Amino acid sequence: MSSSDIFTGETIGTAVLILLGGGVCAAVTLKRSKALNAGWLAITFGWGFAVLAGAYIGAKSGAHLNPAVTVGLALDGAVEWSDVPLYIGSQLLGAMIGATLVWLTYMGQFKAHLTDPELVATLNPAEGMVDQTATPQAGPVLGVFSTGPEIRNAVQNLITEIIATAALVLFILTMGLTKGLAVSGTGTLMVALVVVGIGLSLGGPTGYAINPARDLGPRIVHALLPLPNKGGSDWGYAWIPVVGPIIGAALAAGIHKLAF
Amino acid sequence: MSSSDIFTGETIGTAVLILLGGGVCAAVTLKRSKALNAGWLAITFGWGFAVLAGAYIGAKSGAHLNPAVTVGLALDGAVEWSDVPLYIGSQLLGAMIGATLVWLTYMGQFKAHLTDPELVATLNPAEGMVDQTATPQAGPVLGVFSTGPEIRNAVQNLITEIIATAALVLFILTMGLTKGLAVSGTGTLMVALVVVGIGLSLGGPTGYAINPARDLGPRIVHALLPLPNKGGSDWGYAWIPVVGPIIGAALAAGIHKLAF
Amino acid sequence: MSSSDIFTGETIGTAVLILLGGGVCAAVTLKRSKALNAGWLAITFGWGFAVLAGAYIGAKSGAHLNPAVTVGLALDGAVEWSDVPLYIGSQLLGAMIGATLVWLTYMGQFKAHLTDPELVATLNPAEGMVDQTATPQAGPVLGVFSTGPEIRNAVQNLITEIIATAALVLFILTMGLTKGLAVSGTGTLMVALVVVGIGLSLGGPTGYAINPARDLGPRIVHALLPLPNKGGSDWGYAWIPVVGPIIGAALAAGIHKLAF
Amino acid sequence: MSSSDIFTGETIGTAVLILLGGGVCAAVTLKRSKALNAGWLAITFGWGFAVLAGAYIGAKSGAHLNPAVTVGLALDGAVEWSDVPLYIGSQLLGAMIGATLVWLTYMGQFKAHLTDPELVATLNPAEGMVDQTATPQAGPVLGVFSTGPEIRNAVQNLITEIIATAALVLFILTMGLTKGLAVSGTGTLMVALVVVGIGLSLGGPTGYAINPARDLGPRIVHALLPLPNKGGSDWGYAWIPVVGPIIGAALAAGIHKLAF
Repeated sequence: MSSSDIFTGETIGTAVLILLGGGVCAAVTLKRSKALNAGWLAITFGWGFAVLAGAYIGAKSGAHLNPAVTVGLALDGAVEWSDVPLYIGSQLLGAMIGATLVWLTYMGQFKAHLTDPELVATLNPAEGMVDQTATPQAGPVLGVFSTGPEIRNAVQNLITEIIATAALVLFILTMGLTKGLAVSGTGTLMVALVVVGIGLSLGGPTGYAINPARDLGPRIVHALLPLPNKGGSDWGYAWIPVVGPIIGAALAAGIHKLAF
Repeated sequence: MSSSDIFTGETIGTAVLILLGGGVCAAVTLKRSKALNAGWLAITFGWGFAVLAGAYIGAKSGAHLNPAVTVGLALDGAVEWSDVPLYIGSQLLGAMIGATLVWLTYMGQFKAHLTDPELVATLNPAEGMVDQTATPQAGPVLGVFSTGPEIRNAVQNLITEIIATAALVLFILTMGLTKGLAVSGTGTLMVALVVVGIGLSLGGPTGYAINPARDLGPRIVHALLPLPNKGGSDWGYAWIPVVGPIIGAALAAGIHKLAF
Repeated sequence: MSSSDIFTGETIGTAVLILLGGGVCAAVTLKRSKALNAGWLAITFGWGFAVLAGAYIGAKSGAHLNPAVTVGLALDGAVEWSDVPLYIGSQLLGAMIGATLVWLTYMGQFKAHLTDPELVATLNPAEGMVDQTATPQAGPVLGVFSTGPEIRNAVQNLITEIIATAALVLFILTMGLTKGLAVSGTGTLMVALVVVGIGLSLGGPTGYAINPARDLGPRIVHALLPLPNKGGSDWGYAWIPVVGPIIGAALAAGIHKLAF
Repeated sequence: MSSSDIFTGETIGTAVLILLGGGVCAAVTLKRSKALNAGWLAITFGWGFAVLAGAYIGAKSGAHLNPAVTVGLALDGAVEWSDVPLYIGSQLLGAMIGATLVWLTYMGQFKAHLTDPELVATLNPAEGMVDQTATPQAGPVLGVFSTGPEIRNAVQNLITEIIATAALVLFILTMGLTKGLAVSGTGTLMVALVVVGIGLSLGGPTGYAINPARDLGPRIVHALLPLPNKGGSDWGYAWIPVVGPIIGAALAAGIHKLAF
């Protein structure tokens, strides 16, 4: 696969993934959105169909869209290690573009949400975390960009991300999609629906990053955007949705090698 | 493709698209509907499966059902420009037929909704806009026919429609569906599910027209129907869901030409 | 197709259709059900997946499962008229078996629902109708078996059923499924999802019978079952979900012949 | 099929099934989960996509993942009886692993839920049952692991499980998936969606075990885990979700042999 194909597919594909995935978080979270409080099922289907769209659009690079998937495939021997940095760099760039597009799409809603006197009163800049679903009207907007735990406990949060990502990567590896999701349109749909399932089932504790680029790229954008009252970017948590998914992918690759 | 095929496929296909798409807006909005307040997820799945039904029924013309898709395919070279006016005219006609069928299907509900004393008291004929989801019991019925913004700001609303349509058209172009959705049944399903996803993720600010015919055709029908207390047709907003999607389609065609 | 295949496929297939379709109405309606008040989206997906299950199980007869589909296919020339009575008889028998199985599955819930003092007080035996979704805890249980209008108006209710069934049958005819849904597994899924869509979009006024056997068979079972306080079977409405779908199917066959 | 393939496929596949299936019960039930109260539709889709993930991951053994499916296929002649003990043992082991993984994923939520003073006050150790959906904040946590009836009546509960499982197994047998779900990716999706449908439609009375391993394995884990205030494991009910599904599978195999 050419470097140009990897760069194009992963950057544009991940941008669309985050545009739609971050978009659904904005849709259910921000004041003056028609989808406000549409609920957890809406969030999980939104992310699943974000994978569907991004995976087709990123087909020419194999549509990893996720450093954990890239590492899992590399450990499995399906991707060359020398290509991994370009994959991950493109994914991170794409995720930042996608998060910026979410902001452009919901510009009015961000402004309405962040300048509402009642919301501003609840801000806690030192903490900066907000539950993006249970109390969607309260607090700053980091939840539109990045994940955060309901109960903050590094070991537990890490375990949750490891298990959820291992389930995803093991599924991808056993489907034989090692040459990229795009080899099979139906396979892409299956991955999208399993992502819905992982969200429904394993997203409760941490909001299922299961993808370092999905979390880190938008978090950087959150830190950079000149939004008033946006709250902190919670950098203390940022390593967990990076390290957890990578460990989960390695675990899945190990199980796959041993058992299949 | 013969003119007859284009006319038949686009007119009937778009009529079914709007019958089911406008239908779900009526279902969740109008008083005395069993689906009243069924929520955003119901609306977005309703529109997605409307695409699925319309796309199969309109297969003989390639099932664009959307002037933005037609323009995107023409810019991509997959449709001849000389066919574009017939495509768009048929889509607009079909959308008007579909909106009329929604009215026929929900005739009793329209009457109950529009003559309810409490609702009538909230009418604001000068404005005529109504949020079709957040407060489905309040106000006139334009939301059953056409889209409207939660926060009225021409530039922001335009940007939202551009980005959402660009995501849709880029998806269609990269799927290789340039000869029409109908070449692949599975491809049609993917488009339908991505339309669900775009609704969930990007529909919050403007209600995701992403299709000039979907918005303009029913708006004309709203203006013509002799409904009491129906409110204004909000012609001041009408250009945005026409111009935005066309720009979005052109943007997607440009990205597709450059990157793929 | 042999008479034995028609009988077996239609009877068992329609029984499963109604077991799952009536089942979801019981699930969201009856007291002491875990799915109580699960909402309109649950009802529509439940009926859609009921079609999916019934269509595979009834594959050997072509899985019409619906007299309107049988009539539509006969008018289209894909089914011999001499087979139509056996098709319809088997569908009606299957629907009655399915409704009985719903009662067996939810026996405890029926008892709890019908003997609850508060519910019994709201019974109106002369009318016998109950809104199966908007007020699921109130009134008798006909809504678990058959459809009923939110606003009782024979002409309007008939128009709604005609339009909704015409959309379904036109979809089936244009898919080229004239030799039965079972020729294509993917096609069966598309029909199931379009049935979800028709429910979401066009089910608001009458509860979308779109199938005479689906409505009449369970209504007969409702009349026969020795349930206390069950209310009337609303025979005054019973002709509409029979006649409407047949007219709708004929309309679809006509459009199909003219336009395709 | 080699013993090693059966062991590997069924153990890992069932572990993933229960990780995701039990996971969604934890997600909507336990305090401090982002998905708390996400509703019945979330539960049923969560279990359906759990089947999808588990079936692909367990493809090398045919992905029964369910003793009732194994028995149904053995009665149908598609699986050798001598393999049945290994299938069932592996499924039970996998279910126990999956339930343990749910506990690891939701460790913080279990702790928050079980040590909440208000919840602890409602504990009834003699009974130990809790409705996992209607009152998700109340009572102990058995509902995350195993099913339980809304109305406790052995005969009625048994009938419900028999009918629901018969529908599932008849569907699998008529699909011709007798050599395992994995022969067809699309077939696996159909089974997953029908499992969603069975949950929506027939899950109201007992929570649709429809799988002895899905219920018994996690119940054993519930009994073994050192959770404070966890309540009883309700062993008095445990035989019903084992015996009912086996009878249902036998019934389906009989109908299949007679009618197809």
